Amino acid sequence: MVTKELVKNILNTKYEDIPAEVIEHAKKSFYNWMGVAIGASRHESVDMVLAVANEVNKEADVNILGREEKVDILMAALINGMSSHIFDYDDTHLDTIHHPSGPVAPVVLALGQKYNLTGEQIIHAFTLGCEVELRIANAVYPSHYQLGYHITSSTGVFGAAVAAGILLDLNETELTYALGIAGTQSFGLREMFGTMTKPFHPGKAAQNGLLAALMAKQGFTSSEQVIEAKRGFANVYAPESNLEEVNTNWGKTWEIYKNSFKPYACGIVLHPAIDACIHFGKKYKVEEVEKINLYVNQYVLELTGKPTPKTGLEGKFSIYHTGSVAFLYGDAGESEYKDEIVNSAEVVAFREKINPVIDENIPEESVKGVITLKNGETEEIYIERATGSVENPMTLEALTAKFNKLVEPILGTEKSATIKSVILTIENENNLNQLLNQTV
Amino acid sequence: MVTKELVKNILNTKYEDIPAEVIEHAKKSFYNWMGVAIGASRHESVDMVLAVANEVNKEADVNILGREEKVDILMAALINGMSSHIFDYDDTHLDTIHHPSGPVAPVVLALGQKYNLTGEQIIHAFTLGCEVELRIANAVYPSHYQLGYHITSSTGVFGAAVAAGILLDLNETELTYALGIAGTQSFGLREMFGTMTKPFHPGKAAQNGLLAALMAKQGFTSSEQVIEAKRGFANVYAPESNLEEVNTNWGKTWEIYKNSFKPYACGIVLHPAIDACIHFGKKYKVEEVEKINLYVNQYVLELTGKPTPKTGLEGKFSIYHTGSVAFLYGDAGESEYKDEIVNSAEVVAFREKINPVIDENIPEESVKGVITLKNGETEEIYIERATGSVENPMTLEALTAKFNKLVEPILGTEKSATIKSVILTIENENNLNQLLNQTV
Repeated sequence: MVTKELVKNILNTKYEDIPAEVIEHAKKSFYNWMGVAIGASRHESVDMVLAVANEVNKEADVNILGREEKVDILMAALINGMSSHIFDYDDTHLDTIHHPSGPVAPVVLALGQKYNLTGEQIIHAFTLGCEVELRIANAVYPSHYQLGYHITSSTGVFGAAVAAGILLDLNETELTYALGIAGTQSFGLREMFGTMTKPFHPGKAAQNGLLAALMAKQGFTSSEQVIEAKRGFANVYAPESNLEEVNTNWGKTWEIYKNSFKPYACGIVLHPAIDACIHFGKKYKVEEVEKINLYVNQYVLELTGKPTPKTGLEGKFSIYHTGSVAFLYGDAGESEYKDEIVNSAEVVAFREKINPVIDENIPEESVKGVITLKNGETEEIYIERATGSVENPMTLEALTAKFNKLVEPILGTEKSATIKSVILTIENENNLNQLLNQTV
Repeated sequence: MVTKELVKNILNTKYEDIPAEVIEHAKKSFYNWMGVAIGASRHESVDMVLAVANEVNKEADVNILGREEKVDILMAALINGMSSHIFDYDDTHLDTIHHPSGPVAPVVLALGQKYNLTGEQIIHAFTLGCEVELRIANAVYPSHYQLGYHITSSTGVFGAAVAAGILLDLNETELTYALGIAGTQSFGLREMFGTMTKPFHPGKAAQNGLLAALMAKQGFTSSEQVIEAKRGFANVYAPESNLEEVNTNWGKTWEIYKNSFKPYACGIVLHPAIDACIHFGKKYKVEEVEKINLYVNQYVLELTGKPTPKTGLEGKFSIYHTGSVAFLYGDAGESEYKDEIVNSAEVVAFREKINPVIDENIPEESVKGVITLKNGETEEIYIERATGSVENPMTLEALTAKFNKLVEPILGTEKSATIKSVILTIENENNLNQLLNQTV
């Protein structure tokens, strides 16, 4: 009985039972999540869903990050979960290519505001919600993902229901039913990648999971074995699965602890090359450089070989543009992928010097960079694991720089700094008022 | 390009292009749908979702059938779509075991009220929404259903989006994106059967499809090939599919025209036996009867062999109870499956006389009934196709009797009669006010 055992595990895990370093990492995940959500909060797709929310319902009492409008809790879950994935710059559980905060964080934020919950309750529910979705993802990856499901939403709906269920104080039966109502709503096609509907997925998963928990709280009945039943989640959604992953070592190993944060606003395969170019950019001037050879795995160039990008989105698939901005500006954040940067004379001129070379001895997650100067000197750097990987995590300083770059243009430096200090000690907050006052 | 061709087909099909007999059948479908929805509108599971709606959002402007509460259009779609499936007494497209009205009718009702639309617009959108979901269902049935998907919701979400899209006047691009946003939300596990979550499915499909169309109207982007893409709906959700079913003979053959209505509030395999027992009940008195032999296929008895049911739900799986009420009361509606009827002395006594006999020469959809009287006389009746099947459809009179039995206890005889007359000439209504005034 995988589902029932999972429910018992969840309900037996109090805040005090979670290791301190896991809570610390969860808070960083929450902090990173909020940065990308606020950063994208003025995006046109957020305007569109907000227009729907207003059309549906004029009365509302819950905040949306980075904006003055309020909506109801179901719409808040949808919108905040979507905005955090718009830049594709959120967090990653690399074992399953999962972005765990997206479906869970907006749920705890909405319920926390609505029911005046404490920071400790929030981070407890957030941590367990992420843990459950990642464990279920482990159980169905890779066949589920390969079949075509966007695993972030298809398993994220369970995480959203668990987080909501904890905050709504569901008992064992209710939480079991909440997982049933959530799991039957699992959805998300990878066909949507490249459209606004991709970031819609984690938001809708958040909304579906929250709805499931709200209904279970009212006594609504469902299956008691949604994960393992013959016609349940794993069998229907994944050609192969290993359900032992769901409960084994519960409380001993933590999947959320493996969550990593993207330092750069593009596909993870470009990150080693960015590290290399940033390294060279700090040491050499533009006029000294003859060329930069980037030795990469063939797969990297297949995904990012666009030589003359015209838009920011195309720039994210161009090692030429990306190497150029990394050298020139020492970063590859959302602002380095603005259309005007992609087309600026300085960037276009320097990308001529970026020279990718396929080398099958270099694995996908690494790069060898060799800079050749006009005076004939060369320097080589080998990046085995990029900044932001589990093996080479972003420092809190780097995470703060990323957060500020996303949030300061929207909310200013003071609020950006206050949000950081509140989230990193959120277990001491009696409610979310101080945090939410800073996010609009 | 299956999806694009479908969108063109939809937008090229004006009200005038739909054959009159199809419109007539669509109106009957809508009428039947409303009866079962109003009939179940006081069910405890409706109370529960309504409590969630009120918790989420106090302000609201759209009716729910059979109740005085109002909610927003998204919650109205959810609740009305759910209540119509609670008794498992709605409509059936037998080729795909699909209940087409559930995901579509609540959408046209909610938008019709909100935007003051005409009856002609409503029935036009309803007809095309049902047609699209059934054609997509044909394309993926049976492998999709066998894998474990509740086809009513998993394909119903497309029907809901199409109906909403027509009423929101989406253009070709917008309707294509609406199908994308809808299709990626496709969901519904058969594991949920037997719980409140089963009827939740058509309601949630209605809500998801409506949301998709509302978002597309705002310019939200999505895939242009959700049905046929490599990682799109058909490939991910069905081991085998035939996408020619989606567009072939569009406008020439109508799947909605094959929709049938359940005369009895139980599984379709019992319907021939009910017809036989009703026939005998009209001719003979209780005290004359020695026994009634019902010769049925083995499969029928596997599903309905419960000899001593204690609850209404168990009664639905008992040929003994069902034959007894059919003989005694001439019907097997929701009221014949109340707990007190199942346990009444009269019914319990008569069910001793019901004697099912397995006969492999009788197909599942037929029954041979033989009554033996105490005076030694016998009479035999062979029911080849039960009332309500496509080959032997319910008459409008029978449909009216079913509707009244469901609706009169909730709304009274006058409103029940007015609803019928309005729906059957709905194309003449300038708006839905007259109809909606009768449904609360």
